Amino acid sequence: MAREARWDQVLDTAARLFSSQGFAATSIREVAAQAAFSKAGLYYHIREKEDLLYHVCVASIGAILAQVRPAVADEDDPLARLAAVIRVHSRYFHDHPDNLKVLTYELGQLPEARRAEVQAIERQYLDLIRGIIHEGQLAGQLTDMDPTVAAFMLLSLMNGLHNWYDPRGPLGAAGLAQTIQRIFLSGLTLGPIDRANKPRST
Amino acid sequence: MAREARWDQVLDTAARLFSSQGFAATSIREVAAQAAFSKAGLYYHIREKEDLLYHVCVASIGAILAQVRPAVADEDDPLARLAAVIRVHSRYFHDHPDNLKVLTYELGQLPEARRAEVQAIERQYLDLIRGIIHEGQLAGQLTDMDPTVAAFMLLSLMNGLHNWYDPRGPLGAAGLAQTIQRIFLSGLTLGPIDRANKPRST
Repeated sequence: MAREARWDQVLDTAARLFSSQGFAATSIREVAAQAAFSKAGLYYHIREKEDLLYHVCVASIGAILAQVRPAVADEDDPLARLAAVIRVHSRYFHDHPDNLKVLTYELGQLPEARRAEVQAIERQYLDLIRGIIHEGQLAGQLTDMDPTVAAFMLLSLMNGLHNWYDPRGPLGAAGLAQTIQRIFLSGLTLGPIDRANKPRST
Repeated sequence: MAREARWDQVLDTAARLFSSQGFAATSIREVAAQAAFSKAGLYYHIREKEDLLYHVCVASIGAILAQVRPAVADEDDPLARLAAVIRVHSRYFHDHPDNLKVLTYELGQLPEARRAEVQAIERQYLDLIRGIIHEGQLAGQLTDMDPTVAAFMLLSLMNGLHNWYDPRGPLGAAGLAQTIQRIFLSGLTLGPIDRANKPRST
């Protein structure tokens, strides 16, 4: 296996162990053994266990952002863009549930500077979502809820998935996306009644 | 101050410290000092630090449930009952943000048996919410989304609040409740188009 693919396997193994037993309870030795990597080989990539957590977090939020950006760019309409964000995020969660659970629960284990680096990428994701919501409001499609509040509502729906969603269960990635779209987009979209009640809107 | 009020003050102090610096980094000595309680007095109530975490978690989810049940019983209509759940939860979060953050992030620090006790109360809350959703579906008011999935969507919106909601900010408890109601209830309510597209519904 190429070096990069092997390294991805190490990160996947680390994410799975951090997710199932917690960062604190997982040793580098365990990650190396389960990823079929020598401990010496692992120390070629990292200095300490915390480096693994950092790379898992950066790879996870980085991968979502890297997949969301082109999906959003493919759509002209703000509502379709939000639907695309939800579709890509749901698919990523379906395929990598451990990564996002670690990002949610173990980020606090990183020292301040590295946590801030991860949060800066999360912030880009937040900015992307609230930018689309703002566009939708300007286009007269969406309610005038504070775009930051609305964006956090969507992130809450997606970040809460590890409390209930089982990727091996009957609700696949597409069904999951439809469920979140149904709740979030219906809640945010201006209906006929809203339009009738908004004499101030242009 | 009466013994019970002083004990509540200890739990509030513990929740604040666990929330701001984490359970692991907080000592019993610190909780006692900040609650103006003697360490000996504290050991009258608890044996170890973990007992404080357990009592904070039980008190938090227990208080929400104790306030939600009568509020729900006061309403006849399923939609109004869901609105009441959201109103009470938003108010509780506004008044006790630390308690719910601790419940979300530190529950895993409890040993299995005590964690299960807290989760059993959380389960009652889940059951209450999905029961109301099921009633609303039987009454023809709500979409036929799986009631368990729908209940977790609502819990995700409410459990994600500590990521963004500042009780000292401009959005008060009532405004917060309206925001969550807007997203969740609009997403779940059958609109005219849904009704037109559901020839199988009675």
